[in-house]
Amino acid sequence: MKPELLLSRIRVVLCRPSHPGNIGAAARAMKTMGLSDLRLVHPRTFPDPEAEARATGAVDVLKSAKIDDSLAEALAGAVFVVALSARRRDLGPEIGVPREMAGRLLAEAAKGPVALVFGNESVGLSNDEIQQCHAAVTIPTNPEFSSLNLGSAVQVLCYELRTLAFADNLPAVDPTVTPFSSPLASHDELEGLYAHFAAVMTATGFLNPEQPGRLMPKIRRLFGRARIEKDEINILRGILAATQNTTGHARKN
Amino acid sequence: MKPELLLSRIRVVLCRPSHPGNIGAAARAMKTMGLSDLRLVHPRTFPDPEAEARATGAVDVLKSAKIDDSLAEALAGAVFVVALSARRRDLGPEIGVPREMAGRLLAEAAKGPVALVFGNESVGLSNDEIQQCHAAVTIPTNPEFSSLNLGSAVQVLCYELRTLAFADNLPAVDPTVTPFSSPLASHDELEGLYAHFAAVMTATGFLNPEQPGRLMPKIRRLFGRARIEKDEINILRGILAATQNTTGHARKN
Repeated sequence: MKPELLLSRIRVVLCRPSHPGNIGAAARAMKTMGLSDLRLVHPRTFPDPEAEARATGAVDVLKSAKIDDSLAEALAGAVFVVALSARRRDLGPEIGVPREMAGRLLAEAAKGPVALVFGNESVGLSNDEIQQCHAAVTIPTNPEFSSLNLGSAVQVLCYELRTLAFADNLPAVDPTVTPFSSPLASHDELEGLYAHFAAVMTATGFLNPEQPGRLMPKIRRLFGRARIEKDEINILRGILAATQNTTGHARKN
Repeated sequence: MKPELLLSRIRVVLCRPSHPGNIGAAARAMKTMGLSDLRLVHPRTFPDPEAEARATGAVDVLKSAKIDDSLAEALAGAVFVVALSARRRDLGPEIGVPREMAGRLLAEAAKGPVALVFGNESVGLSNDEIQQCHAAVTIPTNPEFSSLNLGSAVQVLCYELRTLAFADNLPAVDPTVTPFSSPLASHDELEGLYAHFAAVMTATGFLNPEQPGRLMPKIRRLFGRARIEKDEINILRGILAATQNTTGHARKN
């Protein structure tokens, strides 16, 4: 697949950006590296003249940006999602450096749309948002001052993506996916699986919705890491449904 | 030589920057990557509140920036000098990509101070300025829109410098192991999980042991690929056991 096409399949999602200037800077950073699909989840101020000023010749990327009501909406259809995260979390998706995650994103982009998710300038991504991502990337910084500007972070990652997309040694094959595998599940299919797990776990008393603890994050981490396929989602949901039917049927007796 | 020391020997020189905001962004970009020696040759407006606002926590880099009357003055003492150049010139120094030139800069920094020179936002570096540099670096961009922001260009190059400076010292990131994760499950624990799945699937009628098809191989492929942890085995078997208890309990009624 042509590098230009791979890059066009990479969506950049900004969650709750505070400063319109950073939205413009992100659009410019994307376009210089050949990306164009920008999504904005609850931007504080948009559109805004400051965003257009900072976008300069990338105002087209800004104009075609889609505004979404939730991260889930922005991720619809994406087969692989990477969150930028400045800190290690106790329980989160696997984490890697930009070069490594750029490789993963490009490999998955050959199969369908992928997304790179950035949090708010001050507070980053919420745990709930991180849980919706399959992997995380950290840009290594000076431990005494790790506060990268949002536009600069977008620039660094888009730069790595373009550099790798045009390199000769692009990892064309994802080693975790064997031949004859079915297509990867989309973001919404994965969310459907998690909801089904939660329903079964709650019905059986294994999960107490009042005190959920860390069960669901652990389930998400496991299946997010596995890069689950459509076919496998069907099997797992089939098993879950079968236990529900049995339980329901038994209860009626 | 320690990576921190090598990075501290790399000077960033901005020639005739027009926008004070970009000077602040450059200072911030430098500090996030462990650089601190900023030189300004004929800045149009400096100091300026806009520069301080964009520098955020890197105001110290801004405050200690030296203002020079000429590029020659800014380069005094430097043993190796690389210019950022967006275009190839008929007659100029050798030109390379960021990764390559970051390597050269770090190698030379072991011998003495080195410099990375950036031109004005609109007109770049003059031929006379380019001639004072030993090598040039071009950041590969989208040929249809190559207009990288000055602060973003500083960020990309400082990022490459830090990544390379720490390359040997960086702990190898195993993408499958996240911090605080539990140990990987053993072979027999995995087999126990598969047997438990088979039991539940058979009890619910989802799996017909007479005609098992490819269900179990698919389950094995999924969890084998995920490199499942002990902790995760316990959760999955807990869920399976909970569905069995509910079913069994209901049946007794």
